[in-house]
Amino acid sequence: MKKIHIIGLGLLGGSFALAAKKIYPELEITGFDSDSGNLDLALDMQLISRGLAVPDKDTDIVILATPVDTLFALLEKTLDQVGENTLVMDFGSTKDQLCRQMSQHPKRQQFLAVHPIAGTENSGPRAAQADLFDGNVMIICEMEKTDVHLKGMAYEIFDALNLRLRFMDPKDHDLHLAFVSHLSHATSFVLGKTVIDKTADERNILDMAGSGFTSTVRLAKSSPEMWGPIFLENKSNVLEAFDSYIEHLTAFRKKIAEDDIDGLKADMREANRIRDILDFKE
Amino acid sequence: MKKIHIIGLGLLGGSFALAAKKIYPELEITGFDSDSGNLDLALDMQLISRGLAVPDKDTDIVILATPVDTLFALLEKTLDQVGENTLVMDFGSTKDQLCRQMSQHPKRQQFLAVHPIAGTENSGPRAAQADLFDGNVMIICEMEKTDVHLKGMAYEIFDALNLRLRFMDPKDHDLHLAFVSHLSHATSFVLGKTVIDKTADERNILDMAGSGFTSTVRLAKSSPEMWGPIFLENKSNVLEAFDSYIEHLTAFRKKIAEDDIDGLKADMREANRIRDILDFKE
Repeated sequence: MKKIHIIGLGLLGGSFALAAKKIYPELEITGFDSDSGNLDLALDMQLISRGLAVPDKDTDIVILATPVDTLFALLEKTLDQVGENTLVMDFGSTKDQLCRQMSQHPKRQQFLAVHPIAGTENSGPRAAQADLFDGNVMIICEMEKTDVHLKGMAYEIFDALNLRLRFMDPKDHDLHLAFVSHLSHATSFVLGKTVIDKTADERNILDMAGSGFTSTVRLAKSSPEMWGPIFLENKSNVLEAFDSYIEHLTAFRKKIAEDDIDGLKADMREANRIRDILDFKE
Repeated sequence: MKKIHIIGLGLLGGSFALAAKKIYPELEITGFDSDSGNLDLALDMQLISRGLAVPDKDTDIVILATPVDTLFALLEKTLDQVGENTLVMDFGSTKDQLCRQMSQHPKRQQFLAVHPIAGTENSGPRAAQADLFDGNVMIICEMEKTDVHLKGMAYEIFDALNLRLRFMDPKDHDLHLAFVSHLSHATSFVLGKTVIDKTADERNILDMAGSGFTSTVRLAKSSPEMWGPIFLENKSNVLEAFDSYIEHLTAFRKKIAEDDIDGLKADMREANRIRDILDFKE
């Protein structure tokens, strides 16, 4: 592997550049960002060595790390631009629609649909971290549709980055991610907005916010440009997750209203099981 | 100050013992916990030097760090047991009801209502940390009702622990805490339960949970024994916070259902302001 091109030089794209460069010092990393400020910053930070509107023909891997609503058009354009030995992969948080859009594409075998389960609430090139992927999960969808040689290059770099591969159906991916990721982003955004609306002009009230609130609301700092398209592209699953969550909230509220201490404690004890599940994971 | 007695040797009580002992090595710390396992553990861990069902008459400060529904009875009993030079303070997360219950108490001036804005999702003596209070806020309610000499002892120890004092009306305290603390605990419990219910028997699904989900759901590990009584004792404010949150959630859901990308981004940009507010705090 000699050359990688990254389109979208934010948190994920920038972190991938840093991590790949650390592992393969000889690798040439080119890139592009539609935000010229981000592109200049990525050059200044040496995330990439050259800014290119069109990737070189001999690029081994092109990575698309842009908002999910831009991916299909960008993927089609990129597949037209690159040679037949180039793999193109996207890092989007939704997979079903893109895989369906690509299903009949003549260059489908040059595309790999992946989703790194890694991120922070920060965005832009400055948010890039060389260790962002280390030890985390990389979900791969419809791997059987990608050329064996091309996906081998991707697996090699994922392995070097210490990513753990998980193979999933795109529909399953989108449903599960709606509950374990998209919902928690939405609840954080809404919690942040609720508290800001309530405490308007009482900034100092938030001085009373402890580490618990800070943790729960952390994702409310996330990028609207990335998250708006995710909620819409995964709409049916996200709405199912919202409805289930609002139903659970309403039931919990009712128990408070009715002084049902036993019911509340039973609900909380069930929620406590998240400790075992997440500790098991760690 | 020579002797402190702590009732409730969990996260807050145990941490206070560790912190006080670090600052005042000569201080004698006695204590009690209605759970005999916790009491034994606190003795083994040397959080306290003696377990006592009734504090010594010459105790300077008695701290009540038990669930909020136990505080009033425990406070009345303790004020009967101690001498007139003892200060009794509670660490409860709700303040209005207790202050009202105590308003006509003949020993009201020996009571100080405080709430340390400090905690983790863990509970019990093992959760105690010597630095839990360091740099955090201590809210004090109705300080004018407490004897000057007695509250002076408390202020001295709070200062030594590097706590920042904030004086508040109990009603304001309970309303604000409903939004900046009680609501985020409730939303975490409910998020945890929603995801567990959905992914039942699919434990490995949570392998896909990133650091974002882990952060948002962290408080779901909190103690049901502590939190049940808080939600009920602060019921009217907590229900107001729930209603406001559910209203915001429903509006956000509607924007997703209607593909209102501009409305979603506007909501998220408003929520993003939490970054400035929390960073300002740090």
